[in-house]
Amino acid sequence: MKILAIDTSTSLASIAIAIDERVVAESLVNTDRTLSARLIPEIERMLATAGLTAADIDLFASTIGPGSFTGVRGGVATIQGLALATGKPCTGFSSLAVLAMNFSLSNTLICPMLDARKNEVYAALYDCSSSIPNAHIKDCVLPPAAFLNLIATLTDQPVIFLGDGALRFSELIAQRLGSQAMYAPYPFNSPHAANGALLALHAFRHGQLLEPSQLLPVYLRASDAEINRAKG
Amino acid sequence: MKILAIDTSTSLASIAIAIDERVVAESLVNTDRTLSARLIPEIERMLATAGLTAADIDLFASTIGPGSFTGVRGGVATIQGLALATGKPCTGFSSLAVLAMNFSLSNTLICPMLDARKNEVYAALYDCSSSIPNAHIKDCVLPPAAFLNLIATLTDQPVIFLGDGALRFSELIAQRLGSQAMYAPYPFNSPHAANGALLALHAFRHGQLLEPSQLLPVYLRASDAEINRAKG
Repeated sequence: MKILAIDTSTSLASIAIAIDERVVAESLVNTDRTLSARLIPEIERMLATAGLTAADIDLFASTIGPGSFTGVRGGVATIQGLALATGKPCTGFSSLAVLAMNFSLSNTLICPMLDARKNEVYAALYDCSSSIPNAHIKDCVLPPAAFLNLIATLTDQPVIFLGDGALRFSELIAQRLGSQAMYAPYPFNSPHAANGALLALHAFRHGQLLEPSQLLPVYLRASDAEINRAKG
Repeated sequence: MKILAIDTSTSLASIAIAIDERVVAESLVNTDRTLSARLIPEIERMLATAGLTAADIDLFASTIGPGSFTGVRGGVATIQGLALATGKPCTGFSSLAVLAMNFSLSNTLICPMLDARKNEVYAALYDCSSSIPNAHIKDCVLPPAAFLNLIATLTDQPVIFLGDGALRFSELIAQRLGSQAMYAPYPFNSPHAANGALLALHAFRHGQLLEPSQLLPVYLRASDAEINRAKG
């Protein structure tokens, strides 16, 4: 079972190739404003390094968000194209779940938090004590203070914060939650596509694969274009 | 502070570039028998992707082992060369410590275990509850059964096993430790150089940098060549 998984929800895109529960290649690459130019060449390079072609891949997986609209759209479209062209199935995963999986097997609750601009965060609260994360607060978009209040009403146990939203709002987190909040060491603040490949394998084993047309982004809020259109 | 870190102790080599507590690129690449041909081109490619040259790097870091003799030697020599040519300092880190750091902030003890061939493992037991791992059993080379006995005499608390040695000897681990043993999800079984970059930053902050000539592999046992020479 050969899986190609990508996460393009943040400016540090991640691509992974896994074969039978073994990661054979993973790449984190800074794609600020250059994702569309870099994603396909990077996928081609990694396939070649692994001695594979797109036709060898059995399952394609992409983040479906939340995160950068452009990034998520680009990632989903690329995986849809690869799945369509090869006739292979695909699946999607939450960028926040994959980010939380950086702390797999942790007994501490995990709060992945991505900067959603406009003074909001994409955030969730996951139990990662088993290898598949379990949401205590589902992926949502909120002002960071409102999300921290949600956590405070739910638990007084320690919570590990990670992601670019946690880095941006670390002072606010410290003010609101004090010593309840723990912070990820810096290499843990980005989603790793290898964890997306693990979720894809889980989806495969549970018969939850999709046709390319069924792989859809989950933005959690309307884009600026949609908001402007609605305003008329 | 720009750091280039590499871990070449296993067949899945890892290279990371970090700038000021931010990972800007990381790569895991399968280098079975091709490390010497692949390492420099991969470093060049990653520097170019990050918009950097070797001269821009402030600190170079390599695994010093334990692990594949050829891999560790190649990694150390490459980092020595880069540090010498640029006049920048370097530092080394344990491949087992970096592997254990895949479970940073965990309250569970971590046992990184690499296959050392000859029915032995390179292994250690780390407390990773803070971002810098703390050894309860230092890096050593032992038959896996002997190492598991060492753990059993030390603690009856759960231990997370990871690394290619843990995968190879998983049955033995289960026999000896039963439900005390937990196993890493598969993306966690390889060292990530970004964690090596974090250790390098820690070494820098504590004034523990080295001249290139001081960066030396720690093999933990004699090579076959040395054993054969001693036999005369």
